[in-house]
Amino acid sequence: MIIVNTKAYKEGIGRNAIKLAKIMENIENEYGVEMAIAVQPSDIYISNHVSIKVFAQHIDAIEFGSHTGWILPEAIKEAGASGTLINHSEHTMKIEEVEKIINRARNIGLKTVACASNIAITKAIACLSPDYVAIEPPELIGGDVSVTKAKPSIVKKAVEEVKKIDKKIKVLCGAGIKNGKDVKKAIELGTDGILVASGIVKAKDKEKVLKEMASSFTL
Amino acid sequence: MIIVNTKAYKEGIGRNAIKLAKIMENIENEYGVEMAIAVQPSDIYISNHVSIKVFAQHIDAIEFGSHTGWILPEAIKEAGASGTLINHSEHTMKIEEVEKIINRARNIGLKTVACASNIAITKAIACLSPDYVAIEPPELIGGDVSVTKAKPSIVKKAVEEVKKIDKKIKVLCGAGIKNGKDVKKAIELGTDGILVASGIVKAKDKEKVLKEMASSFTL
Amino acid sequence: MIIVNTKAYKEGIGRNAIKLAKIMENIENEYGVEMAIAVQPSDIYISNHVSIKVFAQHIDAIEFGSHTGWILPEAIKEAGASGTLINHSEHTMKIEEVEKIINRARNIGLKTVACASNIAITKAIACLSPDYVAIEPPELIGGDVSVTKAKPSIVKKAVEEVKKIDKKIKVLCGAGIKNGKDVKKAIELGTDGILVASGIVKAKDKEKVLKEMASSFTL
Amino acid sequence: MIIVNTKAYKEGIGRNAIKLAKIMENIENEYGVEMAIAVQPSDIYISNHVSIKVFAQHIDAIEFGSHTGWILPEAIKEAGASGTLINHSEHTMKIEEVEKIINRARNIGLKTVACASNIAITKAIACLSPDYVAIEPPELIGGDVSVTKAKPSIVKKAVEEVKKIDKKIKVLCGAGIKNGKDVKKAIELGTDGILVASGIVKAKDKEKVLKEMASSFTL
Repeated sequence: MIIVNTKAYKEGIGRNAIKLAKIMENIENEYGVEMAIAVQPSDIYISNHVSIKVFAQHIDAIEFGSHTGWILPEAIKEAGASGTLINHSEHTMKIEEVEKIINRARNIGLKTVACASNIAITKAIACLSPDYVAIEPPELIGGDVSVTKAKPSIVKKAVEEVKKIDKKIKVLCGAGIKNGKDVKKAIELGTDGILVASGIVKAKDKEKVLKEMASSFTL
Repeated sequence: MIIVNTKAYKEGIGRNAIKLAKIMENIENEYGVEMAIAVQPSDIYISNHVSIKVFAQHIDAIEFGSHTGWILPEAIKEAGASGTLINHSEHTMKIEEVEKIINRARNIGLKTVACASNIAITKAIACLSPDYVAIEPPELIGGDVSVTKAKPSIVKKAVEEVKKIDKKIKVLCGAGIKNGKDVKKAIELGTDGILVASGIVKAKDKEKVLKEMASSFTL
Repeated sequence: MIIVNTKAYKEGIGRNAIKLAKIMENIENEYGVEMAIAVQPSDIYISNHVSIKVFAQHIDAIEFGSHTGWILPEAIKEAGASGTLINHSEHTMKIEEVEKIINRARNIGLKTVACASNIAITKAIACLSPDYVAIEPPELIGGDVSVTKAKPSIVKKAVEEVKKIDKKIKVLCGAGIKNGKDVKKAIELGTDGILVASGIVKAKDKEKVLKEMASSFTL
Repeated sequence: MIIVNTKAYKEGIGRNAIKLAKIMENIENEYGVEMAIAVQPSDIYISNHVSIKVFAQHIDAIEFGSHTGWILPEAIKEAGASGTLINHSEHTMKIEEVEKIINRARNIGLKTVACASNIAITKAIACLSPDYVAIEPPELIGGDVSVTKAKPSIVKKAVEEVKKIDKKIKVLCGAGIKNGKDVKKAIELGTDGILVASGIVKAKDKEKVLKEMASSFTL
């Protein structure tokens, strides 16, 4: 699984999001590696144009009703989202909300990828039963050194701790992931895939980097 | 100007939002009253299907960059939004953010409708130069008595105070608006239109109520 | 351990807080049950007047520096606090903050009592290693039926799950605790004590209720 | 008026806060310049030890009741506070809250010093009728260049705009204020005094700097 988080990057908005999603679609088809793009809420409709999964970057713990300006899980679902990131280090959430959102999402058929910044938080979040936990040390996000190189032991430990709590929860890692080697290492450390942002969205040749990453899954 | 805020109402999401927008489009064409629908961010793309204005219900004070999960003004603009509500009583904001967002929105060509709950806040917000101020006493929102009936003096005063601060700012009123009489009264009190939510979105016959409201502008 | 949370109750502020703390001091001395009063930050100085422990109701995850208006752990410590509640259902916190605060508090010698509203959140919080977890179903807080009567199984399960994660963490329960019988039941269910608010602070005869509760520990 | 904001500085906590307040007391007596120290909530009790005014750095918009962990205006009042800062750039607030707090504070006899970062926000806040507006461009806070040197026109304009809205509101300025010359300039620009933090709290010889500042009022 490769999840590309387009954040609020210029290169990942609107038409650029569609272009990137099309590239991902081709590579998913070619390499058989599951792909998802996590976009701005206003871009979730691009799911109508591609076969890969489209994720939200965040949803709010609200239900149908008078909640002007908050992101309704059912609304992103109807717009075509398959899942959502939650508790990203750029949008951390209250424990109560994380738990509520994970349950809300499960009930309506949205996958949740909950982010965690260290081992203790990884364990805490695993107790709340998301579909995925993504461990991303915030100090490495957007940087030049990948988590798999800087902190391989934290990735390995995250996988072990999550599996102790609940074997069904999948583990991703992120932060500084830039190339096929980083992905290969992530898989070796026991993860089910990666969460990547600038490494793809800001890459000059997105297709090349994505292909390299995708091919590392099958080596 | 009639702005219909669909909040997170089931009746205002996805296909329902498109249906409602189509009704509004017909009435705008027939009566010549400007219409806008303020929708969930994931529904802004419906602007591709209708000629009326589509507004966001909220945007965040962020710029291009690493801001996972926050709503980027440029993203809703590219998805087709003409403007946005801000500081709705269900999503109040920090003064600093309201000011930043109003300026951000103006710079990229989005209209701002800033909500205020009383006269003091109406004046404060007018100092920040939004395109519209919408006065909505929160205790009347979603209720059976319209602001124009319960508090006509607050609406009149809001108009006066805003115009003293900046004549270019338009004034809307909202809360409990249900029918043509309420709209007529709003216009008489000096407003440029209304902000309405459940009065339309929860109405059994949305078209009938909207027509009645639209016709009250031209009387 | 009996922790009395005075919240923002008129009966628990300033001179009233001192009076209540004096009563608790006498009962602690008489019954040998550990007592702590969790007060408004501006009342922590009352620790100079009584021998029982004084707790804060909340601290912020800040360090020394430019953080105007946020509650510094070191400041409440110097004012005489022995510990603090965190993540109370009336002041829930981000996972990242809960983790940071627990570590900050431990480093400077403050005990942490982290509140949780259900079993999943109890487990999540136990992974963050506070000194105490207090399980308080929010729907029972301030009500007439105690958690030990309405949800004995949730209290028992909370104790079991916490001990599985870390035997050193103590477990309290709260919500609706009103009398000695509730306390006795809490102890039987395996907790190390109770977190109580209106049951004491709003009681007509605080001393009588506290004595009854304290005596239930030793039965 | 000189307000010294001790923030969460080590040099302004507990015993250090008392020492600083004692120095201020002496200078107030000697120079006849009104002094106030804005401290951590847990330090408000120091008002029992000095004759100068003690302010909170923030209060929350709550009333008596179940509000664990939030700062009750009545609690800081009873602990001895004369007033409070609000909306400091390190703790900005929602417009609705600023308005509620100003009214709450006035009703119970607490003075409010509302901070603003630029002219538009200064005007907005003046519409909410605090006792003081303090203009502090955030980019200059904690820096080496004072607002009176870097942006004298913004200070002058702030005074003019506030007085246009409400002559009773007093205006302070802050950010980078370090010496008597800065204070003299602030007075010349029409302010009623200054809000200072690191310039005093981090000064090697606090007494000397404060005396210099105080004497600049009477020149």
